[in-house]
Amino acid sequence: MAFDVDRVLAGDLRAAAALMRALDDELPGAHEALREIYPHGGRAFVVGITGSPGVGKSTLVDALITAIRARGERVAVVAIDPTSPFSGGALLGDRVRMQRHATDDGVFIRSLATRGQQGGLSRSTSAAVAVLDAAGFPVIFVETVGAGQAEVDVADATDAVVVVTAPGLGDEVQALKAGLLEIADVLIVNKGDREGADRALADLTNMLALGARAAPALLRTVASSGEGVAEVVAALQALRGRPIAERDARRRRQAARQVLAIAGERARDRARAAIGSENAPGPLAAIIQDVAARTLDPWSAADALSKV
Amino acid sequence: MAFDVDRVLAGDLRAAAALMRALDDELPGAHEALREIYPHGGRAFVVGITGSPGVGKSTLVDALITAIRARGERVAVVAIDPTSPFSGGALLGDRVRMQRHATDDGVFIRSLATRGQQGGLSRSTSAAVAVLDAAGFPVIFVETVGAGQAEVDVADATDAVVVVTAPGLGDEVQALKAGLLEIADVLIVNKGDREGADRALADLTNMLALGARAAPALLRTVASSGEGVAEVVAALQALRGRPIAERDARRRRQAARQVLAIAGERARDRARAAIGSENAPGPLAAIIQDVAARTLDPWSAADALSKV
Repeated sequence: MAFDVDRVLAGDLRAAAALMRALDDELPGAHEALREIYPHGGRAFVVGITGSPGVGKSTLVDALITAIRARGERVAVVAIDPTSPFSGGALLGDRVRMQRHATDDGVFIRSLATRGQQGGLSRSTSAAVAVLDAAGFPVIFVETVGAGQAEVDVADATDAVVVVTAPGLGDEVQALKAGLLEIADVLIVNKGDREGADRALADLTNMLALGARAAPALLRTVASSGEGVAEVVAALQALRGRPIAERDARRRRQAARQVLAIAGERARDRARAAIGSENAPGPLAAIIQDVAARTLDPWSAADALSKV
Repeated sequence: MAFDVDRVLAGDLRAAAALMRALDDELPGAHEALREIYPHGGRAFVVGITGSPGVGKSTLVDALITAIRARGERVAVVAIDPTSPFSGGALLGDRVRMQRHATDDGVFIRSLATRGQQGGLSRSTSAAVAVLDAAGFPVIFVETVGAGQAEVDVADATDAVVVVTAPGLGDEVQALKAGLLEIADVLIVNKGDREGADRALADLTNMLALGARAAPALLRTVASSGEGVAEVVAALQALRGRPIAERDARRRRQAARQVLAIAGERARDRARAAIGSENAPGPLAAIIQDVAARTLDPWSAADALSKV
C-alpha cells in the first residue's frame, strides 16, 4: 500500500491519521512512508506530560490545548494509555474529556495503547510524533499515564518534560518524585486548591534546593478551573525559546537511546517469528519447550534465537 | 572468576548473595554459574506482589514474611525499586521496614534497582529468582513498585500474582485496576480500615462479576496491624496446591515471553557496544550523529546496528 507522503507533509490530517493507523497496524508500506517523512520533521516543540495516576494530567492537557489554541497555534496530543496485554483494550479514563476539541481542526488527539509491550512508548510514540511533526504541528504533547518506565522514556522522546503531581498521594509517591524531579523542566502541583497543596509545594521547593542541576519551574495549578495554566504556557514558551544548540544537544543524546530501543524491539520481533505461536510454531519453537522443561536456560535460548 | 555453584545449591546464603551481586555487576563467570544452577530450580512457589504506589505493598510483604516464618518455612523477597536513570540510586521508601527480618537466617531480602532499563524486571529479577530458587527457598516474593509495565511483567515471572489496592486513590487508579484484575490471583484491599474500603470492595466485586475468567480471591487487609494476613496466606497456600500440570502450563507460556525479553536486551547490549559512548565511540558511532542530524531515520539506524 502506498501512502500519500506529500499530503502528510502538506499537513493533511486525514492522511496523517491514516499513516499513524497503518503504522500501528504495521501495514505494508507504512514504515517506508515514515522513513520518507522523517527527514522533514524536527521543527515541532515536543512536550512530555507525565506523573502518577490521579494527578489530573488529562485535565491539564485539556486546559493547555485551550490556551494554545487561543494563541492561534495548532496543537497535537499523543496520549499513551496503559492497556491490558490480555484484552488489548485501552483504559481511556477521563481522556474523553479532551474530546470537546474534536471539532477543532487545529487540534489533533491520538490515543496509543501500549499493549503491554516493553518499550511501548518508543515504538508507537516516536512514530506518531514523527508523523505529526512532519505534518507541521508546531506543538506536540506526549501524555503518559502511570509511574515507572514510561515516565523515564518520555524524557527521551521530547524537548521538555512537565511533571505533574497533586497533594495527598501518599509517601511512596513522594519518593517516586525524586526520580521524576530529575527529568522535569516544569514541575506542577495540580489540584492546588486542595488540602496539602501548600505542604507539597514547600516539600518540592526543599527537594529542588538539594538538587545538583538547574531547578525546574515550580508552579501551582487548578487545571479544572484553568487557574495557573497561563503560567504553565509561559514556562513552556521560555523553554521553547532555548538556543537551538541546546535543543540539538538534547536530541543527540536522545537519538542513541531511541535507536537502542528500536534495535531491542526488532530483535524481539525476529525472535518471536522464530518461535511462532502455539497454533503456528516457528522453526525454533522447540527451544521454548526446552526452557519450560528446564533442560535449557532462557539466556542460552535467547542466544540461540539471536543467531537466526 | 569461578562461583561456588555447589554452595549455592546447598542453600548457602552468602554464596547466593555473592552470585546475585556478581550477576548485577555482570562480572565474568557469573552468567555461566547462573546457567549451571538453572536446571536445579523450578521447585519454589514464586509470588508476585504488585499495585500502585502508596497501597502498602511493602507493609503487606513484611506481614506475610512474619506469617510464613511462623509456619517454619524459609522465604525470600526480590523487591524491585524504581531508580533514576541519572543518579542510579534506588528509592527504597518504606522498604527499610522489612529490615527487621535482617537477623533471621530464614529470610532473604534482595532489592534490585531497575536502572531505568526497559524490561528491567526480566533481566535482574529472573536471575535473582533463579538463584534463590536453586538455593532452595520454598517461597519467593517478587515485589514491584509502580503501575504499568512492571505489573504486567510480574505475571510473566511468577506462579501467582497478588494485586494490592487501597481506598481513595482516585478514578484513574480505578481504571488501571481493570488491567491488573486480569493478572490477579489474589486481590487485596489494603488499609481496609480506612474510609472508602467498603466501597472499594463492592466496586471490585462488581468488576470481578463482569470478568470472563475465574475470579481471584478478594480479601481485605490492614497490613500494618496484621488483620486479614492469615487469609492471604491461606489463599496463597490454595494456589500453591494447584495441580503441577496447571503450574507447568503457566510456566510454558512464560518461557516464551522471558526468552523474547532476554533476546531484546541482548540486542540492545550489542547495539550499545557498537555505538559506544561520547568519550569512547564504538565502530558505528557515526550512525547516531546521522539520526540526530535527521539525515538517517532511527528505524534504518537500528537495522544497520542489528547487522553488526
